[in-house]
Amino acid sequence: MIILGIDPGTATTGYGVIKIPDDILGREFKYDIELVAYGNISTPKEKLMQDRLHMIHSELTSVVEKYQPDQMVCEMLFFGANTRTAIMVGQARGVIMLTAAQHKVPFQDYTGLQVKLMVAGSGRADKDQVHDGVRKFLGTATRRRNKLKANWKGGHLDDATDALAIAICHVLKLASK
Amino acid sequence: MIILGIDPGTATTGYGVIKIPDDILGREFKYDIELVAYGNISTPKEKLMQDRLHMIHSELTSVVEKYQPDQMVCEMLFFGANTRTAIMVGQARGVIMLTAAQHKVPFQDYTGLQVKLMVAGSGRADKDQVHDGVRKFLGTATRRRNKLKANWKGGHLDDATDALAIAICHVLKLASK
Repeated sequence: MIILGIDPGTATTGYGVIKIPDDILGREFKYDIELVAYGNISTPKEKLMQDRLHMIHSELTSVVEKYQPDQMVCEMLFFGANTRTAIMVGQARGVIMLTAAQHKVPFQDYTGLQVKLMVAGSGRADKDQVHDGVRKFLGTATRRRNKLKANWKGGHLDDATDALAIAICHVLKLASK
Repeated sequence: MIILGIDPGTATTGYGVIKIPDDILGREFKYDIELVAYGNISTPKEKLMQDRLHMIHSELTSVVEKYQPDQMVCEMLFFGANTRTAIMVGQARGVIMLTAAQHKVPFQDYTGLQVKLMVAGSGRADKDQVHDGVRKFLGTATRRRNKLKANWKGGHLDDATDALAIAICHVLKLASK
């Protein structure tokens, strides 16, 4: 099963692709999360907003077509953000959700709190702790199974690492069912 | 020149298409605004959000391909809305802006205040006064030039009428330059 996690934003939309065994339920899942790919879709500030959204849609479409995810998961903005931020993130979310629907990929949201709780073990975890959690869950399988380790330092791409955290959160939710 | 006004929303996205002479600058524009088409894109509540956004994208794409607008204009949410509303409207805006970019149609925003000021003459105008303004600006040209009058009662489609108000606001801005 391929899971695509997405951390939405107009300037940078991070994504992370992981692979888990199809029979994840009841397994010792944490040694079975394989890192497939990750990256940032960055859009230049000087471009018009509609063209930046077009870039996100085009690049994310390529990612979806390349990795054929079975599930897309995205972070839902916390409530209390200011209107301008919420609209901007909403616009990016709109094209992300559209991409999921266009490819008939199920789409699900997690809050930042859920991601922190599941990946770092505490709702009060900071970014470093969440990134440590990502490394922990991906480390073994990634070293064993693919060649991405050399490139992946976990954290040099903040948004991509956040996206991986969201994907891992979904796996942990699946495994805990 | 064809202008497509859009009032964004997940449940209902209103649209209105108007036509003005290409040499609008300095003309007595108000007798030259022709109503071409209007309608609502409604999406069922019981559908998943990503599928509702997909419906908006598909139907708006059909509208853009049918009427070939030279300009798309949309209402920008006022600040101070709650986060949830802002994200929802942002998501709909995202797919609308994407549709504009995919068809290389220039996209512009107006605030509700600007629309009220330009179309109804006052920033404190209520919905009825804005709709009266829409009728005033479209009345003559619409009666004279096309057959839509019989169908158009102005106000029986609130969101479409709001969309027409945004399109008219853009014309008045153009004419006042």
